[in-house]
Amino acid sequence: MGIAEFELIERYFSALPGYGRGVDLGIGDDCALLTVPAGQQLAVSIDTLVEGTHFLAGIDAEQLAHRALASCVSDLAAMGATPAWLTLALTLPEADEAWLRLFSQGLAAALQRYGLSLVGGDTTRGHRTLSLQVHGWVPEGQALTRRGAKPGDGIWVSGTLGDAMAGLELLQRQQPSDQVPDPFLLQRFYQPTARIELGQALRGIASAALDISDGLLADLGHLLTPENLGAQIELDRLPYSAAMLAQFDPARAQQWALAGGEDFELCFTVPHANEALLAQKLSGLAVDCRRIGRVCAEPGLVGATGGEMIALSAQGYQHF
Amino acid sequence: MGIAEFELIERYFSALPGYGRGVDLGIGDDCALLTVPAGQQLAVSIDTLVEGTHFLAGIDAEQLAHRALASCVSDLAAMGATPAWLTLALTLPEADEAWLRLFSQGLAAALQRYGLSLVGGDTTRGHRTLSLQVHGWVPEGQALTRRGAKPGDGIWVSGTLGDAMAGLELLQRQQPSDQVPDPFLLQRFYQPTARIELGQALRGIASAALDISDGLLADLGHLLTPENLGAQIELDRLPYSAAMLAQFDPARAQQWALAGGEDFELCFTVPHANEALLAQKLSGLAVDCRRIGRVCAEPGLVGATGGEMIALSAQGYQHF
Repeated sequence: MGIAEFELIERYFSALPGYGRGVDLGIGDDCALLTVPAGQQLAVSIDTLVEGTHFLAGIDAEQLAHRALASCVSDLAAMGATPAWLTLALTLPEADEAWLRLFSQGLAAALQRYGLSLVGGDTTRGHRTLSLQVHGWVPEGQALTRRGAKPGDGIWVSGTLGDAMAGLELLQRQQPSDQVPDPFLLQRFYQPTARIELGQALRGIASAALDISDGLLADLGHLLTPENLGAQIELDRLPYSAAMLAQFDPARAQQWALAGGEDFELCFTVPHANEALLAQKLSGLAVDCRRIGRVCAEPGLVGATGGEMIALSAQGYQHF
Repeated sequence: MGIAEFELIERYFSALPGYGRGVDLGIGDDCALLTVPAGQQLAVSIDTLVEGTHFLAGIDAEQLAHRALASCVSDLAAMGATPAWLTLALTLPEADEAWLRLFSQGLAAALQRYGLSLVGGDTTRGHRTLSLQVHGWVPEGQALTRRGAKPGDGIWVSGTLGDAMAGLELLQRQQPSDQVPDPFLLQRFYQPTARIELGQALRGIASAALDISDGLLADLGHLLTPENLGAQIELDRLPYSAAMLAQFDPARAQQWALAGGEDFELCFTVPHANEALLAQKLSGLAVDCRRIGRVCAEPGLVGATGGEMIALSAQGYQHF
C-alpha cells in the first residue's frame, strides 16, 4: 500500500482505547513491551480468518471485528485465562475508509467487552485476511487444558448449542421481504460470547475443557481420543435456545447441536466429587451449564435417547 | 482444507524441535502456556508476508522460512530482547507436501539459529500468506526503543548496507548461463541476520534503536521525527560489502545503502559519553558497527561528502 494508505489505517487503529493491564509500550515501536503479572503464566493463541472461507465477502465489517475477536478470546476462556492483549495482522485489498471505520468501531467495542488492548499489528495489501493473536494470563499451574478427563467424569456444556449454525442458515436463506430473520440467532452467529468468567470459575473444578468451534462431537473427541476414552451423550439433555426450538424441527436442531460448531460455548469434564463445588460456582454466573453425558472407559461416542443407544461420529449420528 | 490436509500440515510442524525456554504447554491445546522469567518484560511483534508482495511466487520454501523468521526476529533484536517463542499463521493454496517439507526444514534451522520454539499456529486455505509473531523478553526497563535520541548523539549502523537490494537485483536480472549470481549478496537477501547479540549489547548504551527494514533514511526518520530532530550523515562513511563494491558502481551502492531496505541491520544512536563503553562491547561481537553521522537539533536530513552538503529525503538524495 502507499504511505498515505498506511497512515490512514494507522490512524484508525492507534485511536483505539486500551483495556488490558500491563501494557508498558504499545503500538509504534519494533515490539510491544508487556508485563505478565507475577505468579501468572502467559496464554497465547493465534487464529486466521480468510474472506470467502471463514466469513462472507459482504459481511458487515463491525460484525466481522466482533466475531473475529470473540472467537479468538474464546480460546483464552477455554484455558481459564484472563484476556489482556491483542495483536492484529490485517491484509486488505485496499484502504477503504468506510470499511476501516466500521471495523475499528466493532473492534473497539469488542476490546472493551473482553478487556483487551490492541498492542501491535501489521497491515499488508492482498486478499482480505485477518490474523489475530490474543494474549492473557492464568495463575501458575491452574490453566484448564484438553488433557485430564477420567472415566466417570460428567460432560458439561455452557449455554445452548447449534444457534450459530441456525443463524448462518437464516442469513443464507432467501427471506420473504416482510420477514426479518430472528435477531437472537443472528446475534449468536455474529457476536458469539466468549465464556471468560465461566472458564475462570472452572479452574480447580473441571478436569479438562475446550471451546466448541468445530462441533460438540468433533471437539469432545479432542478431550477423549488422546486419553483413549469414550463418552455417552444423553441426547435429550442437549441444550437448545427457545429461538431454535421455535424455528427448526428437533432433528435439525440436534444435528446442529452435535456437529454444527461456531457456538464458542465451553465443553468441559467434571469429576463427580467436584459437582457440588461446580453448582456453587455456577450460581454466580450469567450462563447456564448442563451435564449432557459421562466419560466412559471404552473409546467411541454413544448417544442415549428414550432407552435407545445410537453410535455417534464427529459428523453426527448413524443408527446401529 | 480437508482433515487429511490439516493432519499433514500438523505433522510437519509438530515435529519441529524447540529451542526457547519457558514453554509450559506447546502446540495442540486452545492456547500455549508460557512463562516469562522473573524481572523481564515480554516483547512481541507480528509481521505478515504476502506472496507476490513480500516474496516472489517461486521462492524456495526453505529460504522463505529463514527470511521470514529472521526479518521478524530482527524486531526483537532492535529492542535488545532475547528471542523465545514463535506462533505461525499459515495460509496456503493447498497442502503441497514437497513445499511443506522444505518450509519446515528451513523453519527448523532458523528456529535453532535464533533459539525459538514454535508454540502455536493456525493453518487455513487461501492465497499464500504468512503471519509470524515472535515473542522474547528483556530486563525490565532496559529495552531499546525508538524514543530517546538527543542532539549530538552519534548515529551508528551495523554490518554493511544495501546488500539485500543488490541480491534482489541479481535474482531478478537475467544471468548469462555461465555466470552464477554472487552467493554473498544472495545470502544477504535470503538469509538476513537478525542482530540479536548486538541489540542485547546496546542495552544501557544506545539512546534509541531500530532495525533497517524500509531503508536507512526512512527508518532513521522514525527515530528523529517524533523528537523533532534531524541528522547529518557522512556519506563517505556508509559501510559497503566487498561484494557490493566489486559488482555495482558507487552511486548505485549509495542509493541502496540510503534507501534500499531489507538489510535488517540495526541503526542506533549513542551519546558521546557512551562511546568508550560501546567500543568495549563491540570488541566482543562478530559484527562491525560504524558511526555514520550525528543527530542535529534542526529537523531534516543532510548528507556530507567531500566538503559538500546534500539534502536527503527518505527516498534518497537531491542536490541543493
